[in-house]
Amino acid sequence: MQEALRLAALGRFTTSPNPNVGCVVATKSATKSATKHSNESVNASEHILGRGFHAQAGTPHAEVHALAQAGSKAAGSTAYVTLEPCSHYGRTPPCADALIKAGVARVVVAMEDPYHQVAGSGIQRLREAGIAVDVGLMQAEARELNLGFIKRAEQGLPYVRVKLAASVDGRTALSNGQSQWITGVAARQDVQLGRALSSAVLTGAGTVLADDPLLNVRLTRAEYPAELSDDIDVRQPVRIVVDNSGAIGDSLKLWSVASPVWLARPQGATHTVLPAHGEVLSVEGDTESNASRIDLTALMKTLAQRDINDVWVEAGARLSGALLQQGLVDELIVYQAPKLMGPDAKGLIDLPVFTRMTDLPEWRFHSVQQVGEDIKLVLRPRK
Amino acid sequence: MQEALRLAALGRFTTSPNPNVGCVVATKSATKSATKHSNESVNASEHILGRGFHAQAGTPHAEVHALAQAGSKAAGSTAYVTLEPCSHYGRTPPCADALIKAGVARVVVAMEDPYHQVAGSGIQRLREAGIAVDVGLMQAEARELNLGFIKRAEQGLPYVRVKLAASVDGRTALSNGQSQWITGVAARQDVQLGRALSSAVLTGAGTVLADDPLLNVRLTRAEYPAELSDDIDVRQPVRIVVDNSGAIGDSLKLWSVASPVWLARPQGATHTVLPAHGEVLSVEGDTESNASRIDLTALMKTLAQRDINDVWVEAGARLSGALLQQGLVDELIVYQAPKLMGPDAKGLIDLPVFTRMTDLPEWRFHSVQQVGEDIKLVLRPRK
Repeated sequence: MQEALRLAALGRFTTSPNPNVGCVVATKSATKSATKHSNESVNASEHILGRGFHAQAGTPHAEVHALAQAGSKAAGSTAYVTLEPCSHYGRTPPCADALIKAGVARVVVAMEDPYHQVAGSGIQRLREAGIAVDVGLMQAEARELNLGFIKRAEQGLPYVRVKLAASVDGRTALSNGQSQWITGVAARQDVQLGRALSSAVLTGAGTVLADDPLLNVRLTRAEYPAELSDDIDVRQPVRIVVDNSGAIGDSLKLWSVASPVWLARPQGATHTVLPAHGEVLSVEGDTESNASRIDLTALMKTLAQRDINDVWVEAGARLSGALLQQGLVDELIVYQAPKLMGPDAKGLIDLPVFTRMTDLPEWRFHSVQQVGEDIKLVLRPRK
Repeated sequence: MQEALRLAALGRFTTSPNPNVGCVVATKSATKSATKHSNESVNASEHILGRGFHAQAGTPHAEVHALAQAGSKAAGSTAYVTLEPCSHYGRTPPCADALIKAGVARVVVAMEDPYHQVAGSGIQRLREAGIAVDVGLMQAEARELNLGFIKRAEQGLPYVRVKLAASVDGRTALSNGQSQWITGVAARQDVQLGRALSSAVLTGAGTVLADDPLLNVRLTRAEYPAELSDDIDVRQPVRIVVDNSGAIGDSLKLWSVASPVWLARPQGATHTVLPAHGEVLSVEGDTESNASRIDLTALMKTLAQRDINDVWVEAGARLSGALLQQGLVDELIVYQAPKLMGPDAKGLIDLPVFTRMTDLPEWRFHSVQQVGEDIKLVLRPRK
């Protein structure tokens, strides 16, 4: 399963809106020998008959690749799959049927597919065909591969990561606005990777007007950590700008690269003619606080309906704070530089005034790592 | 040498103002076999003839303990010492002489002793007696054991650690002053250890008046990480309060525990009668900015003269910021909690307004670790 998870991750720059899935087909003998080890993963590569991962929507699924590699030896084998095999005809035929047809004896599935068209029916179909199915091996790791896909399937919302860059005293810019660069080259490269792992990059009109950013991924093929097949295009995230007042004109650098730009604007707002790769997302107003501003939850629902799994937010303190306060943020990613900027410098994130320590939003450190001279903190809400 | 370093560290709650020193006496055969390994440390415990560390000023040094354990087998052996053996008569006779007398053939020294009464003369004395001496093995690790002792010997100033506790957005208290507790139990326990490792705890009168803290070490014997001998008293740091205006009265909790309290006050300032364990440090005024405030550099020089190696600062944003701006801080220790407190909450540290990113004080992350639910960042000035 560990190998299947590794394979699944190879697709993480290309598969969306589909999930990352990996599959290993192994001989029975490998399965038996593996029980000597502390988990059930297949360690001995000589026992693996086939490997596969899902690379891009519309192309064959992981199981199909692994079964093809195994050929006739797949009969009687065990297949390890990181996500429940599909049971429906989508752009490709059901993988459950392919496993049955190949004569696989046992299927080990890391997790059920939360997608409503699968949701257990793939497992059921395998069992009905007499195949032994075990579910749950390395489930936590398998979920981590598809946080956006899962959240969209389960909640109709994308998985939202808010990226912030700050000094140790939590400041993002000097009082005069200077902020380039707080973090070092390695952290900024890591931000490029964060974008590359996402279906969309989201920001506010204020940031676009202040910095005139491209917001695209500018990694060379060699800078991606995975070995990427040359015949598959890596994803450029959709660039989304919250533009409540129609401030985004067509002379901005944003338009100079070809990936789509969506301007999220309040319903009924007028807008000028956009370049061909631009589109207006008409989003209902935030009736609770200010109807001339879009409702951010409605925006996120719209994005999920448009197959956006993972949203990477690079915005100012106000938009980041608003997303946070509305409970839309799944991860805070804080790149922290070994600098001190002082109390007059600009704060990290806008939040209301709290009067009790117990009222503070509760997070937990999911991971902490050094990235060049900076550190990267990943926080998730405490359950 | 690795073993000698480990031994030296056993004294870190007790030896000050003396340095932490460890010594291992090993057979020649151990030395030879060790050359097979990647470094010169003695790995095989069966070849070690004697171990020792310095536990407390006035008691025998590390070499004496190790030689006593080795007995007559010390003749022809190699001694690994984390700091140059002393050559002068202090409270104990010179260790260089003890090594010579024991007939040791070779001495490996991690670093020279910067203390003016030694400073190479111990090594010289050994060489003059025909002993082979190598200097510099694991020097960096050896320096880490005695940062305060070394800085005091080299610069006449103590090593100053400023401890701060903040949210991820760099805030130390809500706008109404509430701050208990930002960090969790494990971090607060770690702060106790930080105090225990220091010769002195320093704060400002404002903090004392606001929080009425004890500022002592409240660890039980079992909570210290090292095995401590029962017949040696662990150190209670001296508690030092910067009290420019004479605000510290005798009714504060501070006085309820027995360790010394020093009130740092401007020269010529009047003061009331203090409890017996209290003392006024008369420090020259800060003639550059405000003569009614003490000059913090002068304070630090005074502390060094009084044998204070390591100062642990737990103060407010103003005193912490002043120490930082005067270049007196060797380490910033930031306990960061997975919380967000918002822009109205109180800032981490007072600094002037910067207008250029290149003007920011440059630090580097020395270490980053998780402590319970919080993280501990240790920063040191970039050289």
